[in-house]
Amino acid sequence: MGNTQRLSMTIVDKYNTRVEQTNSLLCVGLDTDVARIPDNFRNTKFPRFEFNRYIIEQTHTFVSAYKPNMAFYENNGASGWHELSLTIEYLRANYPDIVTICDAKRGDIENTNAQYAHAIFDELGFDAITVSPYMGKQSLEPFLERKDKAVIVLCRTSNDGAGEIQDLHIDGTPLWEFIATKVVQEWNTHNNCMLVMGATYPSEIQRVRRLVGEMTLLVPGIGTQGGQIEPIVVAGVNHLYKGLIINASRSVIYADNPAQEAQRFRDKINAHRGA
Amino acid sequence: MGNTQRLSMTIVDKYNTRVEQTNSLLCVGLDTDVARIPDNFRNTKFPRFEFNRYIIEQTHTFVSAYKPNMAFYENNGASGWHELSLTIEYLRANYPDIVTICDAKRGDIENTNAQYAHAIFDELGFDAITVSPYMGKQSLEPFLERKDKAVIVLCRTSNDGAGEIQDLHIDGTPLWEFIATKVVQEWNTHNNCMLVMGATYPSEIQRVRRLVGEMTLLVPGIGTQGGQIEPIVVAGVNHLYKGLIINASRSVIYADNPAQEAQRFRDKINAHRGA
Repeated sequence: MGNTQRLSMTIVDKYNTRVEQTNSLLCVGLDTDVARIPDNFRNTKFPRFEFNRYIIEQTHTFVSAYKPNMAFYENNGASGWHELSLTIEYLRANYPDIVTICDAKRGDIENTNAQYAHAIFDELGFDAITVSPYMGKQSLEPFLERKDKAVIVLCRTSNDGAGEIQDLHIDGTPLWEFIATKVVQEWNTHNNCMLVMGATYPSEIQRVRRLVGEMTLLVPGIGTQGGQIEPIVVAGVNHLYKGLIINASRSVIYADNPAQEAQRFRDKINAHRGA
Repeated sequence: MGNTQRLSMTIVDKYNTRVEQTNSLLCVGLDTDVARIPDNFRNTKFPRFEFNRYIIEQTHTFVSAYKPNMAFYENNGASGWHELSLTIEYLRANYPDIVTICDAKRGDIENTNAQYAHAIFDELGFDAITVSPYMGKQSLEPFLERKDKAVIVLCRTSNDGAGEIQDLHIDGTPLWEFIATKVVQEWNTHNNCMLVMGATYPSEIQRVRRLVGEMTLLVPGIGTQGGQIEPIVVAGVNHLYKGLIINASRSVIYADNPAQEAQRFRDKINAHRGA
């Protein structure tokens, strides 16, 4: 953190530059469920891609990152994978300044993670991936060693039952807080780590901001999942008035007017950002 | 556990039946890395599938389960996914008594896990999946509610650095042990849960066997990863002399004679099994 002598642009730099260009901390989750998209997309050869292209064209002006969740593509097997690939190619070709996050929550032994890193960073070409901390730093090295990418570690997730494991106390400290400290002090040697902090837990976001300095947080869970914007923005921005990637998925992509909804979220975030 | 009035066969029943047929606790990991397979497979249209078919034909007599790791297929994108699909179709058509495990280590919010469950259980047709416990029971419900499938929860994994998170103490109990107890007491309501216990940690396997009764353990890490067979079998079998799915991947599939190697593992396991 805080290293200003960089040989090449990190993904954090890319994100911060985009945030300045668009004045937006908004990420849109491309969790494209074919059962929920309009017929005119569903009846095409590549429905997820066609729908994503429409959402990207509608929303890109207000957006600094896109985050497809892998499950919504694997759900349709080889064809779904191809549509995800088309989506990322489209973003890289047309909007190379926007950060692309693969929400995959991967985590396996080192030999296997090397395969995932190749698949997601090199074959698909994503800027960033979400990973699970459960198997430890050493297992995540194939992700962590990639200075040109970002590794977003699950910390306090947005789901209702997240506390069952994440709130367990280690010598008086909740597990999620222990992991946040580990990531910032030990795993972030290449200045490429971020943390997932659910929007549904603003007081945890406040605590984690104090622990991690300027580290960027991916905050899913506004919109359909019910996270409130004001408390998470007030608690979560870093001293640069950035440091948050705030994600909305269903509430934007299935809106009657996705552009309007994305703009509304961006502006609502900025109203509390203090920049 | 111990419910003998079942309306239909669980995956545990399927596994135990197969174990009796073949007298084997061996699982072969189909972690097919195209860089390591012989040229005569690599130069075909579906190299992973062709190689897997060869391995299956060589080894099925000695095997009760096959476990492809998703990363080795995603590594090749849409085509890799198709080859995984062909592999599972081949197994279901020719060896329907063998248990199929998707080593995916998935774990996301409930809405997203529903997509993964559909992809892996219904589209690909696997009997079982490995999942991460980090986001809690509620998030895993789309897997756990499937009485016709098995859900294999990461507990103490086989990798060197596994202890960094998994050995953290919760009121004097290591996290992995806490999770084992939760799974057996709270998550296993449909008698469809298993645990991942790395072969490289036999004393942990001994402890977990005392905690979980007859629950089946998936034990990866013999062979290339260095886990020793005798201590894990002695410590891990349940009172039925079953309860273990012992996985070898690289040491079998890249052997000069995979059949001989699979038979050798099966027999070495049985030498310590006491059945």
